[in-house]
Amino acid sequence: MSSTYKRILVANRGDSAVRVIRACKEMGIETVSIFSKGDKGALHTRLADYSICIGDVQSKDSYLNAYNILAVATDYKVDAIHPGIGYFAENADFCELCESCGIDYIGPNSKIIQLMGNKIEAKKVAKKSDIPIIGEDCIEINSYEECLNHARQTGYPIILKAANGGGGKGIRVVKKEEDLFRSFELCQKEAEKVFGASKILVERYIEKAKHIEVQVLADQYGNVIHLGDRECTIQRNNQKLIEETRSHKLSEEIRNRMYQGAIAICKHIGYVGIGTIEYLLEDDKSFYFMEMNTRLQVEHTITEIITGIDLVKEQIRIAQGEALEITQDDIHFNGYAIQCRILAEYFNGSFIPDYGKITRFDMPGGFGVRIDSSYEANNIVTIYYDSLLCKICCHDQDKKQAISKMLRCLDEMQVEGVSTNKEVLISILKDTKFLEGDYTTDFLKTIK
Amino acid sequence: MSSTYKRILVANRGDSAVRVIRACKEMGIETVSIFSKGDKGALHTRLADYSICIGDVQSKDSYLNAYNILAVATDYKVDAIHPGIGYFAENADFCELCESCGIDYIGPNSKIIQLMGNKIEAKKVAKKSDIPIIGEDCIEINSYEECLNHARQTGYPIILKAANGGGGKGIRVVKKEEDLFRSFELCQKEAEKVFGASKILVERYIEKAKHIEVQVLADQYGNVIHLGDRECTIQRNNQKLIEETRSHKLSEEIRNRMYQGAIAICKHIGYVGIGTIEYLLEDDKSFYFMEMNTRLQVEHTITEIITGIDLVKEQIRIAQGEALEITQDDIHFNGYAIQCRILAEYFNGSFIPDYGKITRFDMPGGFGVRIDSSYEANNIVTIYYDSLLCKICCHDQDKKQAISKMLRCLDEMQVEGVSTNKEVLISILKDTKFLEGDYTTDFLKTIK
Repeated sequence: MSSTYKRILVANRGDSAVRVIRACKEMGIETVSIFSKGDKGALHTRLADYSICIGDVQSKDSYLNAYNILAVATDYKVDAIHPGIGYFAENADFCELCESCGIDYIGPNSKIIQLMGNKIEAKKVAKKSDIPIIGEDCIEINSYEECLNHARQTGYPIILKAANGGGGKGIRVVKKEEDLFRSFELCQKEAEKVFGASKILVERYIEKAKHIEVQVLADQYGNVIHLGDRECTIQRNNQKLIEETRSHKLSEEIRNRMYQGAIAICKHIGYVGIGTIEYLLEDDKSFYFMEMNTRLQVEHTITEIITGIDLVKEQIRIAQGEALEITQDDIHFNGYAIQCRILAEYFNGSFIPDYGKITRFDMPGGFGVRIDSSYEANNIVTIYYDSLLCKICCHDQDKKQAISKMLRCLDEMQVEGVSTNKEVLISILKDTKFLEGDYTTDFLKTIK
Repeated sequence: MSSTYKRILVANRGDSAVRVIRACKEMGIETVSIFSKGDKGALHTRLADYSICIGDVQSKDSYLNAYNILAVATDYKVDAIHPGIGYFAENADFCELCESCGIDYIGPNSKIIQLMGNKIEAKKVAKKSDIPIIGEDCIEINSYEECLNHARQTGYPIILKAANGGGGKGIRVVKKEEDLFRSFELCQKEAEKVFGASKILVERYIEKAKHIEVQVLADQYGNVIHLGDRECTIQRNNQKLIEETRSHKLSEEIRNRMYQGAIAICKHIGYVGIGTIEYLLEDDKSFYFMEMNTRLQVEHTITEIITGIDLVKEQIRIAQGEALEITQDDIHFNGYAIQCRILAEYFNGSFIPDYGKITRFDMPGGFGVRIDSSYEANNIVTIYYDSLLCKICCHDQDKKQAISKMLRCLDEMQVEGVSTNKEVLISILKDTKFLEGDYTTDFLKTIK
């Protein structure tokens, strides 16, 4: 099974495409990048060895056009496709299509993606692996009546989720019965529209919880290790905004149970690749399996910083059929790292994505600072893609010092031409509750 | 003696001023920056809390105008002055002037600066500390006749050095007797002009040697530790171009003798602060004390990366009278780091500093990459200061991987408006001799 890739197609755009191309270049692997008509001249196209326009500016015509992508992949005789983050990452159909073309998909196989992509099946796996889940059973709801019955058993608030959902979409929190019908209908419609399946999952909604996730690495020889936890509790509309590692509010007992649970799931399903097990931490004692992401994550950066392990290179080596060279004992957690996502947006009652030409793009630098961006000065932010301008990571000996460094960086950063969320980030970082770890996922509601 | 600084004046410009201001900001210390008329709007002025113009564009009228600097320091009631790198770093007179104004000079006291700034006295100290020096004795030469006699004893080639010199200036290599007179005269004149003293030191010139230096940290309570070695063998005209840590061509026996020698010197003279002991490594067995730098160095960055210790913060804490919190046992060397100095210059038979408006300044990013620069897009590089545009550091698990990362970074970096030495750096990094460590300080002569 062992092979060595000579050329990889990166089926993505933005900072995730840049991230993957950088890893490939350092490994001596050629890269083929794809771009839409809206991304001509973008950084990911400049960095790749080959760069091919695959369609119109809308994602459905380009980055989600599987056939155009595979045509390029075949044409350029690539050994493998890296899906990046978003688009075809965690897409079992695309993975299968790659397999049928004899091209490696860098990620787990399509069966695993499908299994863990279904929130109900994933919860069953967690339960079998002895990891706590919310509620006794994993119930799939097909009608309003079923939903109503289940809600009455559970008690309000409840949360409705698209069974195949992800990325904060297809989610509705229902606080009282009179809102249930409308929420159920909307959620089902969104699930159908965004994820192509109307299946809904109902569970008790935990209002005050921390989001903790565990990074795992698994090879095809049954070796599974974890790379510690990340706390991603600071979210807005279920989208992560600030991530940290390792969470300093976990008892060692809970932390170890989370780690062992993550490894148990991987072993149970024969997972191969890099992945993340997401948990909700309700209080000092209780945590629940939320979902598994069978791909690279936006916040992988901070885990790399404190462990020294390049996750994208590991992902590629695993896909090549290599055995992990590192064991659990080799993993040490060095200091504390925080990531802030810098978004192009402005405030107008709520936050609206901003777009336009970036006339100035001066990033902070210095010791312990990592910048991941796909933008450069004079690039244009369009309305067609997500509003992430760059990720700033700060590494220091503890959380307090990492926060000081991040505040220094945000003060230093100068972006002009589009508005950014810099001020929101600064106000979070300056809040003593943030320093103390005294917050749950509703934190942003409390500081506005 | 213990105090806590509330405000520091940074008596420098460029990346060293930016470096110090960043550390102060992260420590919660206010900063006062100074600037010449040529540096209006420069990054170091934007980052500081206060920024004061202290004179004309020429360094002698501004950054070397001690009285103007001390007037600002007094006016702004600063607790201490950080001299940065160059200008008043290692200047005993300036240090004394600060002391007499009741302002702390962040560095060792003036007596230590003076002692180690004199190459002859420094060699005597090394000899007393049982560290090998070149030749049996340290001889100060006052006349051509003395020089001639000494050269005949030593044998050619010899090297003439300004006794108070540094930074690659005031140095002449003499290969045969007929060149001696002219070289002696020129060296003496340059020593007089640049360093204000015509004293000359003569020693055997080692044509094939590596430049290895040891970083030390010492507090006022007698605690002295080392932070490993740096290899700075890749030089041009005695100016370092690429630095690495730790040198992978040192036997553990030599390495330890260098470390113990560095600590012995510090203990012998009661050194307080951060400093560097520079050695010439002649071959696998022989090394010699070259000089001690009693200040921060341009290449401190890579030591920070592999040890996780912020040297500027340590320097400030030591000056505040704090005891070192770290012991030798706390120091671990994590992976391998390389720094490239990106200079504004063009090739015209030899390398000429370039100047002009930087129209594009896109720096590389990602995992394991550190950028230290004082420039931003649309800044102007003038003819008045040194040509360092930025320093790129790459950190990886070993030298081979760090080189791959650096090549990826140099490929990614886009600077327009001024020429850079990027291509020279790439050709060095791609040379297998560089990877293997098979080079001496004359390496750049061999690849042109």
